[in-house]
Amino acid sequence: MMSTSCILAAGAISPDQLTRLLLAVAVLLGLAKLLGELAHKLKQPAVLGEIMAGVILGPTILGALAPEVAQWLFPIYAEGSAATEAQGSGGYSANYLILEGLVVLSVVLLLLVAGLEVDLSSVRRQGKAAMLVSTTGLVIPFVLGFTTAWLLPEAMGMDQPRMRLIFALFVGVALSITALPVIARILMDLNMAKSDIGVLVMSSAMANDLVGWIGFALILAMLPATGVVDVAAPSGGDVLMTVVLTFLFLGVMLTLGRRAAAWALPHIQANLTWPGGVLVFVLVTGIAAAAVTEWIGIHAIFGAFIAGVAIGDSRHMSEHARETIHQFVTHFFAPLFFATIGLRISFIEHFDLPLVLLVLVVACVGKIGGCYLGARWAKMSHRDSWAVGFGMVARGAMEIILAQLAFQAGLIGERLFVAIVIMALVTSMISGPAMQKILRRRQPRRLVAMLKEEQWVAEMRSGERRHAIDELAAVAARLTGLPADVIGAAVWRREQLMPTGLPHGLAVPHARLEALHRPVVIVGRSNPGIDFDAPDGGPAHLICMMLVPEADTEAQIELLDAIARAFGDDRARAEAMAAANFTEFRAAISAGDARQMRSG
Amino acid sequence: MMSTSCILAAGAISPDQLTRLLLAVAVLLGLAKLLGELAHKLKQPAVLGEIMAGVILGPTILGALAPEVAQWLFPIYAEGSAATEAQGSGGYSANYLILEGLVVLSVVLLLLVAGLEVDLSSVRRQGKAAMLVSTTGLVIPFVLGFTTAWLLPEAMGMDQPRMRLIFALFVGVALSITALPVIARILMDLNMAKSDIGVLVMSSAMANDLVGWIGFALILAMLPATGVVDVAAPSGGDVLMTVVLTFLFLGVMLTLGRRAAAWALPHIQANLTWPGGVLVFVLVTGIAAAAVTEWIGIHAIFGAFIAGVAIGDSRHMSEHARETIHQFVTHFFAPLFFATIGLRISFIEHFDLPLVLLVLVVACVGKIGGCYLGARWAKMSHRDSWAVGFGMVARGAMEIILAQLAFQAGLIGERLFVAIVIMALVTSMISGPAMQKILRRRQPRRLVAMLKEEQWVAEMRSGERRHAIDELAAVAARLTGLPADVIGAAVWRREQLMPTGLPHGLAVPHARLEALHRPVVIVGRSNPGIDFDAPDGGPAHLICMMLVPEADTEAQIELLDAIARAFGDDRARAEAMAAANFTEFRAAISAGDARQMRSG
Repeated sequence: MMSTSCILAAGAISPDQLTRLLLAVAVLLGLAKLLGELAHKLKQPAVLGEIMAGVILGPTILGALAPEVAQWLFPIYAEGSAATEAQGSGGYSANYLILEGLVVLSVVLLLLVAGLEVDLSSVRRQGKAAMLVSTTGLVIPFVLGFTTAWLLPEAMGMDQPRMRLIFALFVGVALSITALPVIARILMDLNMAKSDIGVLVMSSAMANDLVGWIGFALILAMLPATGVVDVAAPSGGDVLMTVVLTFLFLGVMLTLGRRAAAWALPHIQANLTWPGGVLVFVLVTGIAAAAVTEWIGIHAIFGAFIAGVAIGDSRHMSEHARETIHQFVTHFFAPLFFATIGLRISFIEHFDLPLVLLVLVVACVGKIGGCYLGARWAKMSHRDSWAVGFGMVARGAMEIILAQLAFQAGLIGERLFVAIVIMALVTSMISGPAMQKILRRRQPRRLVAMLKEEQWVAEMRSGERRHAIDELAAVAARLTGLPADVIGAAVWRREQLMPTGLPHGLAVPHARLEALHRPVVIVGRSNPGIDFDAPDGGPAHLICMMLVPEADTEAQIELLDAIARAFGDDRARAEAMAAANFTEFRAAISAGDARQMRSG
Repeated sequence: MMSTSCILAAGAISPDQLTRLLLAVAVLLGLAKLLGELAHKLKQPAVLGEIMAGVILGPTILGALAPEVAQWLFPIYAEGSAATEAQGSGGYSANYLILEGLVVLSVVLLLLVAGLEVDLSSVRRQGKAAMLVSTTGLVIPFVLGFTTAWLLPEAMGMDQPRMRLIFALFVGVALSITALPVIARILMDLNMAKSDIGVLVMSSAMANDLVGWIGFALILAMLPATGVVDVAAPSGGDVLMTVVLTFLFLGVMLTLGRRAAAWALPHIQANLTWPGGVLVFVLVTGIAAAAVTEWIGIHAIFGAFIAGVAIGDSRHMSEHARETIHQFVTHFFAPLFFATIGLRISFIEHFDLPLVLLVLVVACVGKIGGCYLGARWAKMSHRDSWAVGFGMVARGAMEIILAQLAFQAGLIGERLFVAIVIMALVTSMISGPAMQKILRRRQPRRLVAMLKEEQWVAEMRSGERRHAIDELAAVAARLTGLPADVIGAAVWRREQLMPTGLPHGLAVPHARLEALHRPVVIVGRSNPGIDFDAPDGGPAHLICMMLVPEADTEAQIELLDAIARAFGDDRARAEAMAAANFTEFRAAISAGDARQMRSG
């Protein structure tokens, strides 16, 4: 057999290379998720922790402390020239190339998912307000960024004086883009995703990003094709061709492509296996569109994003397929991608405080001010307008992708890259708390966060309502220091006014107590069940006693909401009843709460 | 900045390489899925179509017809030595290495998913019967395969005479392994996954595969570490070390590892985000375990499989995380992997009919006979024993992975590789139909497959029960040629005996008609709803009229079952009511049916 006829032959990757590759993926993914969860606990965006994982494993920390370990785990260049190991004459090792390939695939899928979240018709429905906010929120930061970079190119960290125009255009676009996924997440966390302001912010961010990415695609088109900037400007004809093809691609995808997807999706779901048919259709379309835009000369991610917009806009897009892609991309490809950002560069060596501050100030002033003005123009109140401005300021993941592409294309240097990444993280961190403060919103309470083991009765002894209340009141007495009989009597008085049994085996006996300083919940389980006179006639198996201070008017509603979410579906209740210990019980209500937050 | 401190630097993959890489992935995935769906339509395993995609795109067809296109899309060796393109001095192109890396990751994740499906406690519960079937189903094909290969090594396609013992051992193991995912799929398709025989077959296959993969890992350990067989036998000390480490890994993972996973999973679900926490835990554990076994000197997939077994066995493993991983691996990584099987080799050039027949006969006789004997020994009836034998004969995906690894390790040549792949496909194709025939089982009917547009009334005119029946009877009359008033009268007579309204807005008016030759279903939609005296008191919005021949006693139950599955959940009913045309209606019931089949 001729070797050329045997594609993908044996032994291209040696066992040693494979061991290191798998270990590198496991370490990157594991540490990224761990730090992402830590950031989440500290109420920060997960992407912050994911990038930190790369900073720790990359040249900033591991590479500085133990360069040989970093080199072993993430080899860029092949060692020696042993014939059994694949390696590059350019010096790249197989592991490096494979990891780089995974990163490219990750960012393509990330943008595909971001595109799927864009709902063009909701932008249209929002009409004037969304148009005003997205226009001013785009134009003002662009002008501010462009002007600053044009007037002070050295302060902005420009390395290549001959690229001044393209550089200034890029800074303008970079500062005017938002981060749809981060904004969506912040609004969901504040339970504002369906509120008027929430929908307005989302719609404006969608319109904003659509225009912003098209702008960035055109800037990439102006760069020479090799990807390395070494001439002042590419030939005019090539640029024109790329621009024409870009608009052609955009026009076709958002008209014919959208209609074709809307036509194809129900046919696929009706005739192919479910949900695999739709899943593969979305992935193949996204990756193929990415190949087309890469061929046109703008980056692959642009095609993936537009394909996502074209498909996601169809009301036929299966929720199940969307959710599967979203979960896998969010939890596998995204952490891998963001961790490699930190691998690329030393964040200490290239940290330039004046530049970081300049980028941060221009980014905040332009975006917050621009959106505030647009919202005021649309006749919104001062307070709501500030909330819209701070809602739109989050740059998060999208900005980092943009900066990484510009860095890879040689358009910006290490210092500006680091500054933009930091700006993206800082703006994402301030956005949520600022909106919360301005609108006096709180994140909804979660039962799992309020419940300690001493507030949990694994199996109640009582089989009757009054006894059950006393049993839980005794637990509450130990926690609060108040006398058990006072608590029990108060709850029983309330119970007699109107029974607190709910459908599906829940009961929420409760009382307001003047002597109490903070709300308390006690959860008891009863396998045989206790009659709480529920509307569906069934006995209560999960009895949640709520005690709130007399003065705190909202606490009771919040607690009830948290309980309803935690035990919101059959599965959560069944798992809570079956839990063998307190950890399993918490696992059941944590997942139940998450499912309700998602679907609600 | 020193270049060595900048890991993952810019420009490792050129735009042209990236375009081709993305296109290659899109084409491989798209064609694999298309042919996989086609195979499914023809009641064949999807893996058959997925491999065919590779055969078409690989040296067998595209490589023979248009070698330059194949070379462009799937370049193995780098062209020229332009400094901007990453390439290997061994000659490997970046695209080739990245695709190969994706394939390795795919097969690791495939085995992780296969491991997650193993339920050790169900094997224990099945007790004696499962033990007997899995033992005889393992030992007899192993002995048969080993003996044949030992006595007739040339006929079996052995290339390297000095490897006779290892070669014979491999053939023995290869013929005794089964394919858990394929078997699970076949049983689900026959609606037998929860039947006695179904559970027995699954349990036996699990025990079988556990032992089979351990055996294969030990054979790999006997191979020299370079992965290329060029010595008669590796040093005894190395083999011993690898065997000891393998059993150590196995012992630790299945005792401590299992307990650690069972402990960690509820903690992760209680404290980390849902479902991302569990998802990443499973992926990281699987990939890290793969790295460990690769380092030990057996293949990475073995670690992933055992990690899957250790984790999947826990009752705390989140269904949502399992489903997400399963879907993404089944519909993204698996098609990519199986398509590249066809890319590796020309299936025409290396097709050796006598060898294919020999492998096929030995594989079938050993497996079917072995399992039949075990089942008979466990006192099962003749018929059930044959069904168990044919159930276990399917080799599918797992056998192909095994063959590919043996081929890559240089243990078997092209001819035997092709023969084993064909054997795996053929056994998977005969398994389902044979069981069906032996047990006289039918695949359950699907409403979506029975319903044509002329059997669908988009919006019924009638608002009253008797009129509604007549309206649907008129449609049935056009289809069957029977008089409408006869049909209407028969259905109305039945309706008066007992009303056919069901909860959730369904109604199933029906009748047996002597003159009818085959069962017919007519589905009508009514937005205002029609009273069919349902137990929940609600009006019927989806009216499914069932007409069955007098003689066909089972048809009515089957139809009712199909209708109940199609409209089994709220979402399916809501989507069916909202459908703007017949395709959307079919899409709604197809997905509803799939969800019920899955959860049932």
